[in-house]
Amino acid sequence: MKAYKDRSYEELLSLKTQLEAKYKEFQEMGLKLDMSRGKPSAEQLDLSMGMMDVLDCFTDLKCEAGIDCRNYGVIDGVPEAKRLLGELIEVPAEHIIIYGNSSLNVMFDTVSHAYTHGVMGMTPWCRLDKVKFLCPVPGYDRHFSITEYFGIEMINVPMSPEGPDMDIVENLVRTDDAIKGIWCVPKYSNPQGYTYSDETVRRFARLKPAAKDFRIFWDNAYNVHHLYNDQKDVILELLSECEKAGNPDMVYKFSSTSKITFPGSGVAAISASEANLNDLRNHLKVQTIGHDKLNQLRHVRYFKNIHGMEKQMEKHAAIMRPKFEAVLQILEEELGGLSIGSWTKPHGGYFISFDAMDGCAKAIVAMAKDAGVVMTGAGATYPYGKDPHDSNIRIAPSFPPIDELIQATRLFVLCVKLVSINKLLQKM
Amino acid sequence: MKAYKDRSYEELLSLKTQLEAKYKEFQEMGLKLDMSRGKPSAEQLDLSMGMMDVLDCFTDLKCEAGIDCRNYGVIDGVPEAKRLLGELIEVPAEHIIIYGNSSLNVMFDTVSHAYTHGVMGMTPWCRLDKVKFLCPVPGYDRHFSITEYFGIEMINVPMSPEGPDMDIVENLVRTDDAIKGIWCVPKYSNPQGYTYSDETVRRFARLKPAAKDFRIFWDNAYNVHHLYNDQKDVILELLSECEKAGNPDMVYKFSSTSKITFPGSGVAAISASEANLNDLRNHLKVQTIGHDKLNQLRHVRYFKNIHGMEKQMEKHAAIMRPKFEAVLQILEEELGGLSIGSWTKPHGGYFISFDAMDGCAKAIVAMAKDAGVVMTGAGATYPYGKDPHDSNIRIAPSFPPIDELIQATRLFVLCVKLVSINKLLQKM
Repeated sequence: MKAYKDRSYEELLSLKTQLEAKYKEFQEMGLKLDMSRGKPSAEQLDLSMGMMDVLDCFTDLKCEAGIDCRNYGVIDGVPEAKRLLGELIEVPAEHIIIYGNSSLNVMFDTVSHAYTHGVMGMTPWCRLDKVKFLCPVPGYDRHFSITEYFGIEMINVPMSPEGPDMDIVENLVRTDDAIKGIWCVPKYSNPQGYTYSDETVRRFARLKPAAKDFRIFWDNAYNVHHLYNDQKDVILELLSECEKAGNPDMVYKFSSTSKITFPGSGVAAISASEANLNDLRNHLKVQTIGHDKLNQLRHVRYFKNIHGMEKQMEKHAAIMRPKFEAVLQILEEELGGLSIGSWTKPHGGYFISFDAMDGCAKAIVAMAKDAGVVMTGAGATYPYGKDPHDSNIRIAPSFPPIDELIQATRLFVLCVKLVSINKLLQKM
Repeated sequence: MKAYKDRSYEELLSLKTQLEAKYKEFQEMGLKLDMSRGKPSAEQLDLSMGMMDVLDCFTDLKCEAGIDCRNYGVIDGVPEAKRLLGELIEVPAEHIIIYGNSSLNVMFDTVSHAYTHGVMGMTPWCRLDKVKFLCPVPGYDRHFSITEYFGIEMINVPMSPEGPDMDIVENLVRTDDAIKGIWCVPKYSNPQGYTYSDETVRRFARLKPAAKDFRIFWDNAYNVHHLYNDQKDVILELLSECEKAGNPDMVYKFSSTSKITFPGSGVAAISASEANLNDLRNHLKVQTIGHDKLNQLRHVRYFKNIHGMEKQMEKHAAIMRPKFEAVLQILEEELGGLSIGSWTKPHGGYFISFDAMDGCAKAIVAMAKDAGVVMTGAGATYPYGKDPHDSNIRIAPSFPPIDELIQATRLFVLCVKLVSINKLLQKM
């Protein structure tokens, strides 16, 4: 295919006319498709239906510690849930606190705790003139919403397939004690699907932050969310790397079963050093009498151990894989060689990251919307919703049935073409 | 019975010797009993076992709005849960936000929100030199823990069987704009079991606070937790009273199903004016993608409506009533007329409030503990754990089986007698 930028004005104009006709056809179809959020499909949710009544009215509802899970108590999780989530998070059970139904809520609470009471007894962030976070970009919009909500200044750090640019990260955290944290999705990153290299993880563990209360917010949301059984990305376990590097307290690891069982009805957990966990427990014991232990038990009795979870994840992969492949195939067929967009080809996670020509992302998303296909808002993958190049679009293939997904992707590539032509024509 | 204070030194000394012998017998029994917390008994929890598998692998898990409750979404609760909790809280469904598994967590989050972001756009409490709360005493220790945690100064307000002393409340909130809230358990209060009179509720609704962001934290934890089917206390509904009085935004009402179904696995809710709810939703939408909708559905499908809940509460009452009656009977038989203690006789709730002679509560609780019976810590019913008279003890009859409860209460009255005698002898 001849790149659009190498085509003549007349060629582009004629192509534009053809594409506009096709776009009009799409508009007339009255589509209502959604590729905006990383939601599992109904078919994926069906995989966990056996969990619904794994506890029934005859079940012994005592946990291993002999405590009746139907009653108050157990502030930080029943032992067997700590063990299961520990296996998921790759840390020993004693490094785990089990929380409620979503890890987003845990991240919010962790930032809120630091804001109101400080990290491990240090100055509460609300008493500081300035608090900053590093934000690898593009990244996860809900992370950025939390730090924005607390008035924390966000600094963009470019991502590469190896992870965040560690030269920048090292330099900034070493020299600026207002930098208190960094948001990371280290495996199958949102939205690129990148997995941090061993070198990146080791450099994280060896950071020398100016701020003693600097923490890495390590949202390992997609640790077991592979697409291919024979191509599973692996990352180094950060908590033990931090210990080895003499920085045991520098990381909070977050995880949940949201995209393993039921989003909104999962079990979330945090993993950190004993000192950090004790600090969080001081907060937790005022905040709650305990989280939902029956749901913890439900998960443990259903999966038994990490192998049960891994088997479940293979079933998820079997549903997700054809969807990713369908999107990637259309992108390649329709846009390959045109030099108007590039995209990632992840081995897991929930997203494909698409980069359009500079200044085109908003127009593409708006045009898709006008024909009935909702994408994640352009800019959402950047702090404050501001993509400096207006180029990144997150594609979420998981939720729509595959025939709808194919239709939505075909419309999407059409919009990419049309907006790109308009951009090029303007410049001519 | 002759009051202890009217007995001679010799009479008391001889009685003391007898009681000490009895106490020694108790010690030798090696008891391990717990009357400390308001936990339902195993028998009560059995009442809700039918809820465990009311949702099974064949159940349609869409809510009335057509949304799949297994997936992300629905920030403030499914419609049918709002309706059910609305019936419980006695407000229309549109005045409800459904939260997670416990109302304590909701109260914490509400205070935290006010602390970090302010109430309805007003100055965040963390930016103020001084924030104060009124605390009717004796009261609920976990309320006081929340305000203490946020450095909020707590001011004691005396309770009567009609509710808090409203002369004091009215005067303080009118004159001091640092007073931002008051903790209330308006029905079957913790620990007295008092129910606020209509007059008290109306005076609450008509408060003229100096602080525009003053809120009544109305923890209606025991609204349907009656002990007697023919003696159900009733309170005026505060949200509508506030509306009538031109103070629609002055109250947050909290409730949950914790002591209706499973503590820790219940459904919590807040009720407030539209302006307050919108303010809280702004917080909520950053904090979470949504609470556990499957557990909401589980509750609705199990109870269907408020009548289902009320029937369940009658079964709870049948278990609780004999326990309260056993404790009250022993208190009356053993302590009646001795003038060394007084106690409340509630129609509902989870507690009996006992007032010993001044300066005796700590010693009584310690003595009971030394013989193997754990009571709520003396002082716990006051802010900062400081009972100025060292006289109040909260009795929680719900958790132990009735034979254990009787034994524990017999030990308790023995300790009351012994400590009182020691006190009187000291003064002679």
